[in-house]
Formats: sequence, C-alpha cells, structure tokens
Amino acid sequence: MVEKDISQAVIGRLPRYFRYLGMLKDEGVERVSSRDLSDMMRLTASQIRQDLNHFGGFGHQGYGYNVENLYEEIGKILGIDKEHNLIIIGAGNLGQALVNYMNFERRGFIFKGIFDNDPKIYGMKVRNIEVKPMEAVKDFIKNNNIDIAVLTVPKDSAVELAEELVSYGIKAIWNFAHVDLNVPSGIKVENVHLLDSLMKLSYNLALHEE
Amino acid sequence: MVEKDISQAVIGRLPRYFRYLGMLKDEGVERVSSRDLSDMMRLTASQIRQDLNHFGGFGHQGYGYNVENLYEEIGKILGIDKEHNLIIIGAGNLGQALVNYMNFERRGFIFKGIFDNDPKIYGMKVRNIEVKPMEAVKDFIKNNNIDIAVLTVPKDSAVELAEELVSYGIKAIWNFAHVDLNVPSGIKVENVHLLDSLMKLSYNLALHEE
Repeated sequence: MVEKDISQAVIGRLPRYFRYLGMLKDEGVERVSSRDLSDMMRLTASQIRQDLNHFGGFGHQGYGYNVENLYEEIGKILGIDKEHNLIIIGAGNLGQALVNYMNFERRGFIFKGIFDNDPKIYGMKVRNIEVKPMEAVKDFIKNNNIDIAVLTVPKDSAVELAEELVSYGIKAIWNFAHVDLNVPSGIKVENVHLLDSLMKLSYNLALHEE
Repeated sequence: MVEKDISQAVIGRLPRYFRYLGMLKDEGVERVSSRDLSDMMRLTASQIRQDLNHFGGFGHQGYGYNVENLYEEIGKILGIDKEHNLIIIGAGNLGQALVNYMNFERRGFIFKGIFDNDPKIYGMKVRNIEVKPMEAVKDFIKNNNIDIAVLTVPKDSAVELAEELVSYGIKAIWNFAHVDLNVPSGIKVENVHLLDSLMKLSYNLALHEE
C-alpha cells in the first residue's frame, strides 16, 4: 500500500531511481545494495533507504534490493504500468519536439491528438498525427479517453485554456507556458518553466564568478 | 551582499518572484505587501519574508516592497542584469525549439552557435544561426565568450560531450539529455529531465484515481 502523504520531494526523486534501476536491469544486474545505489546516484545510503521505505521498502537487510522487482514496483507507483493518452495544445516548435520525442511513448505516454488555433497548420502532420482546430478538442477528449493535456502555448492564453480543458474532463496538465495555472485543487499540474530553470543556472554561475 | 549558502530551494523560487514582480511592474504597481504577494503566489507571507531576507530583505515594515527595486535586485541576484552567451549542442527538434523561443533572448540569454554531428544539416539555419560541425566547437567557445552550453543530444553521448565542453572552458551546462552528467564540482548543471517530470505527473494522477 502506498502512503498518501509522501512529500513531492520524495516523489520527485522516484523517476531518478526508476532510471538508474532501468540501467542496472539493462546491464543484467540482479541485486543492488543501498550503498552501491548511493555511489551511483550521489545520495546518501540512508536517504535511499528512507525514500524507498515510504513505499513499503523492497530491501532485505544484508541482501540489497532485487533490481527487477524494485524497478517494476516503482514503475507501478509512478503509474506507468499502464498507458496514458495525451493531447498537446500548441503545435509550435516545442509542441512538435515533444510529439517527436520517442522516449515518452516508450514509457506509455501516447500522444493522441494535437490542437492549435492557427488555420494555416490544420491538417499538418507531426509523426502521423494531424493538427486539429481547437473547436474539436472537447469531443476529442471525450471520445479518446484522454487523461493528460500538454500546454505549449503562449502564457497569455494558457490560464484560460487550462480552465477550459478542465471543464472538458482533463485531470492532469503538463504546463510549458511561462505562467502559473489556476485550476481546482483536484487537478494535477506539473510545470516545466524553462526560463526559470535557465535563470537558476545563471544565478549559480554568477555566484561562481564572484 | 549575497549570502553564499542559500539553499537551492530558495534559489529555485527566485525566478518565480521575478516573474510576478515583472507582471506587477508591467501593470504599473509601485508597492506590494508580502501579504498581497502571498495571495498571488500561494506562498505564506512569512515564507516570502524569509526568502527575501536571504538577500538582505528589501521590504520596510508597514510599507511593503518597492516593486521596481525588488525586481531589479532579484534580476541582479539571478545574474540576468548582464547578457549570457549560449551554444546549443544538438540541432534536433528540441534544440531548434529552444533557439526559436524568443523569451530567452529577451532575458539576456543569447544563442550564439548551434552544433551537431550530422553532416546533412551543416549550414542549415535556425533563426539565422548556422548549424556547425562539432569539430568547430572548441574554437567557437574560445572566440565567442560562451558561458553556457545547452545539451539537447541523446543520453548516450551526453556524458562524454559534457566532459569535452568543460575541457574547453564551459562553466555551466543546461542539460536536456535524460542522464546525469559527471562534471567537476565547480561546474554548474541544471537538468531538465522531461520524462521525469511527466512521470511525476503520472504518479500524482494515479494517486488521484485511487
């Protein structure tokens, strides 16, 4: 059973565990100690044990973790043991780049539809998916079991658009617009604020130069 | 004077403060209380005061913060009062999307060069910048005062490439490859692991559905 009150910091580390365990699995490694994981991941061994204990702990004292089990369990916890259907709003450069990135599909995140409000690109195909007008998004969500919407639109339209998508039944939004969305508390939002990330780098660089 | 040991969590929030203050400035607002900022940003007022105190605090009890001053001071702290020269390695969809995204340039992050190892696209132009072969990167860094390298390459080549760039004098890497880089401790790295972000969303969605 998964605890309900796990901090977003722990959850934020889970994909990284999943990534390292996947690498070990691909290399044919069967068992790994928290100490070896700690060396690879540059986390303390106690941090690792603490993190994994949130999920019932999969280790056995002295034996380490079974790599394949742990990989699969974390996959389940991350909800990627089943497929997710995505739509993307905004067929610009970034939207197209995301649709073309095959790693998402390999992990069960399937782009089903692309929408834009520019008539000039209606019908344009990105990886065989046709760009459709925004008017079609409501029915598309209903008929295609869409659970995640990706927003790659300018910030001026993102807030309103998010509200619209939620009213059509969208429960999760992956937001690339450089603005904070205003959605009901049950709706999950994950922001990728690229400019914020770049500014953080710039801060650390400035500190370095002093 | 800026403290040296500010946590990455505080630093991570600074670009967001900068964004909200920029919005207020554009709206002509001159002063803002920590309480009003708190309502807008969904942080507690005490959190805001605490965060801004790390940087000497710019508020005056009972008067709130001077929006323009605080905006400029945070801009300086973030190191964006001066321009940064960037190169991007990997001229695929994502690389092109980043080069085309004008917001970076508006904040002083200037893309100077694009490099790839695919001869078929040498000479191709993205926003008037010509894609150059990787062999040219060493001299380019030296001659163009480049301080940030952006990695939009497959994960298999990213680790080695980062080491190479560091040996040419690069001090900061904005890494989009889905792998952790292995660079000396003085080198600043900011990761944008898109798949990790999507998995985090998937986790929160799975929790929601239980």
